[in-house]
Amino acid sequence: MHPHDPEVTAAITALDLFAGLPASALDEVTARARVRTLGRGARMFDQGEPVERAHVLLSGAIRIAQAGSDGGQVVLRFIGPGEIFGSVAIFTDHLYPADGIAMVGSTEASWARADWLDLIERYPRIALNLITIVGRRLAELQDRVREMATQRAERRIANTLLRLARQAGRATGAGTEIGFPLRRKDIADISGTTLFTVSRTLNDWRRQGLIADDRRALTLVSMAGIGRIALG
Amino acid sequence: MHPHDPEVTAAITALDLFAGLPASALDEVTARARVRTLGRGARMFDQGEPVERAHVLLSGAIRIAQAGSDGGQVVLRFIGPGEIFGSVAIFTDHLYPADGIAMVGSTEASWARADWLDLIERYPRIALNLITIVGRRLAELQDRVREMATQRAERRIANTLLRLARQAGRATGAGTEIGFPLRRKDIADISGTTLFTVSRTLNDWRRQGLIADDRRALTLVSMAGIGRIALG
Repeated sequence: MHPHDPEVTAAITALDLFAGLPASALDEVTARARVRTLGRGARMFDQGEPVERAHVLLSGAIRIAQAGSDGGQVVLRFIGPGEIFGSVAIFTDHLYPADGIAMVGSTEASWARADWLDLIERYPRIALNLITIVGRRLAELQDRVREMATQRAERRIANTLLRLARQAGRATGAGTEIGFPLRRKDIADISGTTLFTVSRTLNDWRRQGLIADDRRALTLVSMAGIGRIALG
Repeated sequence: MHPHDPEVTAAITALDLFAGLPASALDEVTARARVRTLGRGARMFDQGEPVERAHVLLSGAIRIAQAGSDGGQVVLRFIGPGEIFGSVAIFTDHLYPADGIAMVGSTEASWARADWLDLIERYPRIALNLITIVGRRLAELQDRVREMATQRAERRIANTLLRLARQAGRATGAGTEIGFPLRRKDIADISGTTLFTVSRTLNDWRRQGLIADDRRALTLVSMAGIGRIALG
């Protein structure tokens, strides 16, 4: 795909990141974008590499996974369409803090570091939008820290599913389908618990009619029921 | 204290938040600041209140503690001199995400929400500085999430102390003193572990000569030794 495809232009101009920009600025933003599509399992970037570009996902899904120097690994976030990823370190230590891996075939737009800084300098609205986006992620991560410190695994899993539904949920006849191709291992990694506990918990919830899942997607059949578990 | 006191002016103009601003902008920033001093235990703001002001700590220390709807509570951060606090929600949901409590007598500068937005609009450099600050906190919180998901308590405590030393350490004859008046309960809360475990661990480390602590301060006598424990 090319940045001048009408579909790509529409997707870029609809991003939260560029909300409030005048049409002339959006034209410039779009003209400087590089668009690329990667297959399932491909790496958008590797942890520890210098950040050369700012990224936004146009379609698909990305797993952001961080390894410690001790080999311990955690999923920091799943990125859905319309979200920035790997773009904050341009302002901090200039190194990607995690791996970004395509969970399905995915299309991103990205901007070279110098172009990105130039655009933000000239359109400070982008900086304000970025503070809002990063501030929301900080608040979400604060919630996760609190849950990990104070809640049992079952409640953490419920809170994780509710957060994913807010981030990437779509209403279907059966309930709210989470728009990420999640393996149970993914849910365990982002809830800070084990695959065993996630499997047992989701099996229970499925038997109780709270969720439905198949290889393709996980659906919250009863948001109220999951919400009650999240509250403890 | 008054914003026009030379000491306050010097503290405000030295803040990372205002790095790179011309002198005329700094004058304006200082003129619009409100400065107040609160005693130990006083609340700078309460979780859930509307955010009316942006805050920077000039001296002292603040505990940022968040409670969940279930009553579970966690310390999100200790704020030291020169750091912003409670200022990000102006850009997100406009509610303080946590309580801010003075750990000792503390002096803050703050700006009314409208003044703050106006200053950022006119001096976009502040927005860029803010992205850097919030981006670093996001990276720190990502480290904490990874540690909580993958590390035993002893290593988490070591990583916590190293992070606090980077944030607020000062070299003394005895080693690196952490510039927060930390109770052991504080260290437990921010490491996501129990008071019992923190007490046992710090007692061990003191006997091994890795740390020294009294009611006033905690000193890392051997950063290398604590660093080895942090690496596992």
